[in-house]
Amino acid sequence: MKPVFSIPVRVYYEDTDAEGLVYYANYLKFAERARTEFLRAYHAPLEGLQDGERCAFVVRHAEIDYKNSAFLDNLLTVSCEVVELRTSSVVIKQEIKREDEVLCVLVITLVYININRHRPTRIPDNLRTLLA
Amino acid sequence: MKPVFSIPVRVYYEDTDAEGLVYYANYLKFAERARTEFLRAYHAPLEGLQDGERCAFVVRHAEIDYKNSAFLDNLLTVSCEVVELRTSSVVIKQEIKREDEVLCVLVITLVYININRHRPTRIPDNLRTLLA
Amino acid sequence: MKPVFSIPVRVYYEDTDAEGLVYYANYLKFAERARTEFLRAYHAPLEGLQDGERCAFVVRHAEIDYKNSAFLDNLLTVSCEVVELRTSSVVIKQEIKREDEVLCVLVITLVYININRHRPTRIPDNLRTLLA
Amino acid sequence: MKPVFSIPVRVYYEDTDAEGLVYYANYLKFAERARTEFLRAYHAPLEGLQDGERCAFVVRHAEIDYKNSAFLDNLLTVSCEVVELRTSSVVIKQEIKREDEVLCVLVITLVYININRHRPTRIPDNLRTLLA
Repeated sequence: MKPVFSIPVRVYYEDTDAEGLVYYANYLKFAERARTEFLRAYHAPLEGLQDGERCAFVVRHAEIDYKNSAFLDNLLTVSCEVVELRTSSVVIKQEIKREDEVLCVLVITLVYININRHRPTRIPDNLRTLLA
Repeated sequence: MKPVFSIPVRVYYEDTDAEGLVYYANYLKFAERARTEFLRAYHAPLEGLQDGERCAFVVRHAEIDYKNSAFLDNLLTVSCEVVELRTSSVVIKQEIKREDEVLCVLVITLVYININRHRPTRIPDNLRTLLA
Repeated sequence: MKPVFSIPVRVYYEDTDAEGLVYYANYLKFAERARTEFLRAYHAPLEGLQDGERCAFVVRHAEIDYKNSAFLDNLLTVSCEVVELRTSSVVIKQEIKREDEVLCVLVITLVYININRHRPTRIPDNLRTLLA
Repeated sequence: MKPVFSIPVRVYYEDTDAEGLVYYANYLKFAERARTEFLRAYHAPLEGLQDGERCAFVVRHAEIDYKNSAFLDNLLTVSCEVVELRTSSVVIKQEIKREDEVLCVLVITLVYININRHRPTRIPDNLRTLLA
């Protein structure tokens, strides 16, 4: 079984809010850091070029299940796993854990777009191979 | 037909990222501002007391459909509509628009919890009446 | 006496941290919103063109005096006043108040730069006239 | 010569803005992460107790010199050095570098306060020894 990619994330004051918990939007920042490091681990660039035009992944859909709260100074683990790969999009499942406890599950659909035209474009073969 | 509650939100540099668009997590900030103003418009406090213990809504689930991007300096409208009201939770649908164009749709499930015990608790009747 | 330009800013959960106060970096966001609205009030664009190249103000220096804390749900006033205008830079003094109480004073030095070359450039005359 | 404490910080999309640079307030987040890790390295807690009341450092003054910009995906180093230690406050100098290039210098004055009363209080001796 292929191990799931993950990174550690420390919770700082910037991530928390007046309830003493991690602010709900900030789990999406943690998730994006893990996706970035996932691409880096496979030597895939954040941006690509197609026929001379800049291309990159943008988030098209997100489903987030907040199961439990993270607190200041917690050391979290954020995973990143490709669960579906289509022509111009990819679905990634991410879990944010504190030790063995799952705090947050995110299912993120990313579309590969031409940035200037804001239109979906085919994920190039080398990037597709890395994600598969 | 009851009009849907909404607030205006201006996009500043803090909301954007290096792609030139609003960063995907920041739409959740805009949505939370609208939910806060929605409660304020109905004179509902952000936090309540039950048997002397602090209670507040926390986000339990979020589903976000990113249809189109917002840019620096855009003036957006963020709506807030109760679509389901249960004993200790409420489902709110929110649309983020630029003029008539829907950029982002969020369906947010909030649970009313006792903050110290991190346990769901009954939405009090006066708050329930306001939300209905 | 010329009145000082100011905008209202409401404190939301996103602005606070686990100490229950506004997070110290977020006062800089409030200040930048006021500077943006100040430029808008004088019909000055966020970005300009000089010889076909993009130009904008960037922060070169900031001095921030944190006198008192803002809390969740506070309604603040953020002012913006030009205190010095040079060839390619401008010094702006900003106060963040809760009613009559000054919470935070910022002195911000902005430099007008050519974005692509990251080099200071002369503030154009029309913009200079607006700021004076 | 005592080596200066520092941590690595990677720049993610969340840190950048529409100019393609790190947003000016976010350098303060990086600096606060380094201060937190500095305390951790010396086994000093983020919060203390004095006579049963919560105490913590809050920022009282910040002076920030923005010399050069950081970009998406840059790997930065953020240092943390005590330059002055007083009864209830400490002055910390921090440099944010990309390799050998200094991008940002921050001089931060922190005051040790009783959180509930929002009043300065004496830095306890064990914490003072660690900082010295």
